[in-house]
Amino acid sequence: MTNDTMTNDLSVCLTPALIPLYKVDDYVVVIIDVFRATSSICYGIENGAAAIIPVSQVEECAAYREKSQDYLLAAERDGKVVEGFDFGNSPFSYIKEIVEGKTVVLTTTNGTHALHLSRLAKKIVIGSFLNLTALCNWLKTQDENILLVCAGWKNNFNLEDTLFAGAVIEQLKAFDFKPDDAAIAANDLYQTGKEDINGYLKKTSHSERLKQLGIEKDIEFCLQVDLTTAIPILEGDKLVKLR
Amino acid sequence: MTNDTMTNDLSVCLTPALIPLYKVDDYVVVIIDVFRATSSICYGIENGAAAIIPVSQVEECAAYREKSQDYLLAAERDGKVVEGFDFGNSPFSYIKEIVEGKTVVLTTTNGTHALHLSRLAKKIVIGSFLNLTALCNWLKTQDENILLVCAGWKNNFNLEDTLFAGAVIEQLKAFDFKPDDAAIAANDLYQTGKEDINGYLKKTSHSERLKQLGIEKDIEFCLQVDLTTAIPILEGDKLVKLR
Repeated sequence: MTNDTMTNDLSVCLTPALIPLYKVDDYVVVIIDVFRATSSICYGIENGAAAIIPVSQVEECAAYREKSQDYLLAAERDGKVVEGFDFGNSPFSYIKEIVEGKTVVLTTTNGTHALHLSRLAKKIVIGSFLNLTALCNWLKTQDENILLVCAGWKNNFNLEDTLFAGAVIEQLKAFDFKPDDAAIAANDLYQTGKEDINGYLKKTSHSERLKQLGIEKDIEFCLQVDLTTAIPILEGDKLVKLR
Repeated sequence: MTNDTMTNDLSVCLTPALIPLYKVDDYVVVIIDVFRATSSICYGIENGAAAIIPVSQVEECAAYREKSQDYLLAAERDGKVVEGFDFGNSPFSYIKEIVEGKTVVLTTTNGTHALHLSRLAKKIVIGSFLNLTALCNWLKTQDENILLVCAGWKNNFNLEDTLFAGAVIEQLKAFDFKPDDAAIAANDLYQTGKEDINGYLKKTSHSERLKQLGIEKDIEFCLQVDLTTAIPILEGDKLVKLR
């Protein structure tokens, strides 16, 4: 990595609360919420969902029921499915049998929040361990500043999203990018945790919280590297498969 | 470290922009701006400064000239001494010959900003590598939630303050504290960098900026561990030596 002034930035925004520090319209933004929103979005798009519409509020999501019975409505708050909705953000709800050909309307605690705050970006794509290498290969072709936005937990820093940002940097760092301090930190944390990411994350607060929710199988699922190749990209108000 | 509900929190606030996420009145806060404000404050208090008054604005600092000619006025912006002021935040300006018995009025780009945002804390103390062990020994006796506030650079994350937070956690982690994800990350980054902190930080953006300012000697000075034992603490609007 060099400091050439023509070099593109490779920056990590550690929580959505820091998005206002970036001029997001200068960046291609990757939204990261590995437990579980962006993993499920990658899996759903891979499995043939026509589109996933991210919305900020539970009420907005519910309002789609009146537009058409064809929408699948997904709402998660504090790690649980909101009552009255088809499902939440467990990846096991985004299988082919459920989502193929369907449009899912989705609201989550952290991921959709980060996405909405990044709306002015040049492009917005979705990242998770599931589509890691496909995502990185695409990013290498962009010749743009890249901002990896960690969704965190209620605007707080979290380790799992940062570690994933570090995994992206690992694949990009041989190329001509200028990392910021947060990118250096994320990559060094990835070095520390990469041999056993699940084990490393067990010491975090969020892991404890997720364990209490009984979704350890989801966690294991979300840590699978390169299970998918689809890259969800925001077009208008919809996440669709990048073609 | 355990998750006992009676255990005190050991949290790291990675930038001042995240201070609003914490209920600071539940915490003893440590302000960290190792390059160079909090290092210079530790050194100045060690060297017998009667007090250091942190103020947010350059104009506020200048106004003290009219109150009394006895004040030393220190103002730094973007790493440079502001024109017309006695000095900035280089530790070499905080030697005994200059500060002993004097009150310094200080405004800096990042450190005083973090301090003012933390005003509601139970106690506010100042940390740097210079007073690391003395600070940690005192923190161990407090039986309070601890929040390590990294001043960062203009609300952005930086590595040097985070690494210092990790050094504090290193000394506290054998005790009964509950770390948050940022504390775990800071400590892991400290593990990565601790053998050669100056070398490790050379890859950061801030190091590059500081090098351009020609203050590498300041940096080396600020990375000395346990040169001092004084702990600056905020009393009213003044930082004084904890007794």
